[in-house]
Amino acid sequence: MIPEKLIQELKAIAGPEQVLTAAEDRWTYAFDATDLDHMPDAVVFPGSAAEISRILVLANAHRFPVVPRGAGTGRSGGAVPIQGGVVLVLTRLNRILEINTKDLVAVVEPGVILGRLKAAVEEKGLYYPPDPASAEFCTIGGNVAECAGGAVAVQYGVTRDYVLGLEVVLPTGEIIEAGTRTMKGVVGYDLTRLFLGSEGTLGVITRITLRLVAKPVARQTLAAAFKTLQAAGEAVSLILASGLAPTALEFLDQVTLGCVREMLPFKVPAGAGALLLIAVDGHPRDVEERAARIARFCEEQCARPVLRAKTPAEAEELWKARKVVSPSLKKVKPQKVSEDVVVPLGAIPELIAALAKISRRRGLIIPCYGHAGDGNIHVNILYDRNLAAEREAVGATVEDIFVLVRRLQGTLSGEHGIGLTKAPYLGLELSPGAIALQKRLKAAFDPNNIMNPGKVFPAT
Amino acid sequence: MIPEKLIQELKAIAGPEQVLTAAEDRWTYAFDATDLDHMPDAVVFPGSAAEISRILVLANAHRFPVVPRGAGTGRSGGAVPIQGGVVLVLTRLNRILEINTKDLVAVVEPGVILGRLKAAVEEKGLYYPPDPASAEFCTIGGNVAECAGGAVAVQYGVTRDYVLGLEVVLPTGEIIEAGTRTMKGVVGYDLTRLFLGSEGTLGVITRITLRLVAKPVARQTLAAAFKTLQAAGEAVSLILASGLAPTALEFLDQVTLGCVREMLPFKVPAGAGALLLIAVDGHPRDVEERAARIARFCEEQCARPVLRAKTPAEAEELWKARKVVSPSLKKVKPQKVSEDVVVPLGAIPELIAALAKISRRRGLIIPCYGHAGDGNIHVNILYDRNLAAEREAVGATVEDIFVLVRRLQGTLSGEHGIGLTKAPYLGLELSPGAIALQKRLKAAFDPNNIMNPGKVFPAT
Repeated sequence: MIPEKLIQELKAIAGPEQVLTAAEDRWTYAFDATDLDHMPDAVVFPGSAAEISRILVLANAHRFPVVPRGAGTGRSGGAVPIQGGVVLVLTRLNRILEINTKDLVAVVEPGVILGRLKAAVEEKGLYYPPDPASAEFCTIGGNVAECAGGAVAVQYGVTRDYVLGLEVVLPTGEIIEAGTRTMKGVVGYDLTRLFLGSEGTLGVITRITLRLVAKPVARQTLAAAFKTLQAAGEAVSLILASGLAPTALEFLDQVTLGCVREMLPFKVPAGAGALLLIAVDGHPRDVEERAARIARFCEEQCARPVLRAKTPAEAEELWKARKVVSPSLKKVKPQKVSEDVVVPLGAIPELIAALAKISRRRGLIIPCYGHAGDGNIHVNILYDRNLAAEREAVGATVEDIFVLVRRLQGTLSGEHGIGLTKAPYLGLELSPGAIALQKRLKAAFDPNNIMNPGKVFPAT
Repeated sequence: MIPEKLIQELKAIAGPEQVLTAAEDRWTYAFDATDLDHMPDAVVFPGSAAEISRILVLANAHRFPVVPRGAGTGRSGGAVPIQGGVVLVLTRLNRILEINTKDLVAVVEPGVILGRLKAAVEEKGLYYPPDPASAEFCTIGGNVAECAGGAVAVQYGVTRDYVLGLEVVLPTGEIIEAGTRTMKGVVGYDLTRLFLGSEGTLGVITRITLRLVAKPVARQTLAAAFKTLQAAGEAVSLILASGLAPTALEFLDQVTLGCVREMLPFKVPAGAGALLLIAVDGHPRDVEERAARIARFCEEQCARPVLRAKTPAEAEELWKARKVVSPSLKKVKPQKVSEDVVVPLGAIPELIAALAKISRRRGLIIPCYGHAGDGNIHVNILYDRNLAAEREAVGATVEDIFVLVRRLQGTLSGEHGIGLTKAPYLGLELSPGAIALQKRLKAAFDPNNIMNPGKVFPAT
């Protein structure tokens, strides 16, 4: 527990009303979008990088953990204060400082909600592509800390590909600038990308410079219902091999499709085994032609219907249905473990087939959906914690899946991070030498291990 | 000097014929594409990661420098063995191990010549975009170590954006894998991007997994001659603001244009003050339309002629002229210092105007050319080392330019790296806290500072 004297110091730094210590207040910041939780000793809402610097100096002197947090939408336990200490909530740092249409950059604070940023950028005629399903709730700071992705990553890449520069408070309290405001830069080691996906373990991000791009002139969205997941998979392979370069290429299997069926703006035939959702960006005639060819690939695999959204509103409805897939799985079973593995593009069919086998062997429903276009598949292990057989099968099922993914030369996480949930499995992907090097890196930033301790690395 | 006993050990590791010690042989590996040189004690051509590991273990035990080297085309002194030791030439590791059209990846060794890789990838119907001017000579390993760019970076990004995974021999001899074979990945800290642009100071790269993309269906190349650099600059601003998303947008000023004038496949009018070279990729009709609109922007700025390459061979001639700009500057003055500064897109006109003032004040010719589309401008300070006034003005001119670039919120290097030539100026861009952190990072990889010592950081 953090002693009262230090709580007073935290109040002196951030203001008394910005420090919460009542149990009911702290409880709100004990968890994220996983099922995990742990009570923090205090919750602090700092108002500036200078305040954060003073808090980290205090934490270093007295060795208490500091866990940065945005909106708590993370799926790997990154914001859960597993060793107590201070949860540093960054939602007061929520200014869009600049959207510059000449330099094609935005400068923002970490607490800005992604959806608000995207809308503000589009108002200026530009586009910030990353679009995780939580876009309306999550913060850009969390996106950077976890390197969030989303559906349009197939064409546009992930958060990493848009962060040019950062202001960061190091664990020892120094405020540094990393990266640039320019489109290119190779001065010194790439600290910017090292902070990308570092899950709050290397410092507190306090300002972000983002690259913006031209707004796509036209976008078409298609939906196609397939009899079987295999047929959908064939269509995906054809589309990827065609060079038609879709912007998004999402799939829903039978279970996930069932969960959002009534949200879709068209009638999905009974017995449909999979849905593909596809977007194509570009210049109007070009988009028209590519969408037509993609529709043909789907029809060749006997997809019925193959719908091309007629209005932006209809397209929006399709994407809305996609975005609620994850929470709507609670309709099937009360608990779930969400993984976001990635396999090489050619291995997607083998992954899907092998997951069906694991599901049968372990007696658990394992619905899949997600980013077929880049091999990043959201694999969900559903269970009821009141059923001992289901509850007890979860751990072995997770391990089966990770072993499978590694056999296919895949990776454990494409966009959710390691956090708490995957830390025990890090050794399945990284060698002891690579883990030792990563620990030396962590120590070079954070000699006293105050920043988000207990994350990324397996407990020793 | 490395004692004879250790030379014998190097020969035992790599084979006696793979270790050069004669002065005339060592001299060949004393320099790169800068004017700098320093004799190494020995030159070793290792044949495998295992051999490199043993060499680094030896270097660590006996504290001699190891400087990795590809083709020596670097422009910042990265491969110059400034503290002697061993130059580790990686040209024997020159296999293209795999080009996988299903996974859209290539796996290669560092010594593969970039041009050979690009051709092999295109034979399979795919595309590896990065295209530095030295593409026909430089190695992919050097590209990774320096994070090379090139003309098409405007649309496609730089080497960093294509490296998915690496095998690296750490300075202490462990061989580790970083990154993935997948399109996404956030497992642990991003070691892959940390090696990108680390200039051989963190380890020896021995295998590279690259992301490939679909080959553009069509490309158009345009050339436009302008009366003045200002008019060309106006056209650049119009094109960038239009959302027409050029693939490449290069400019040549009057001096650089003069150097390659007779190589161009059309007659440049006498008195032309600048040339723009523009490429547009995409589907054929779309490319046609965008190229026409870009041509119109140029015509509005009174460009004459505005040429659209009629055949791929004609386009190739235009790009060939662009690629020899740098060496052809020797026609003007025997010596040059090449900088590759980057400014925010909106600051390009101010940079160009201010460089003209510096040129007048310092009495040196400072031709500019390069990547107008991403703000990465190659600034060349020409001089004759036999003229004391010119020779002595160079240092102050470099400093003027860097101070200017920083005032415009730019960066000292976009694609050439810091190496030796820019190390004294690192403090103009990075704060003492950021430099101290980078030094701690270096020590976490290389506790005895054997890897390419004397680079990146200013001498202390």
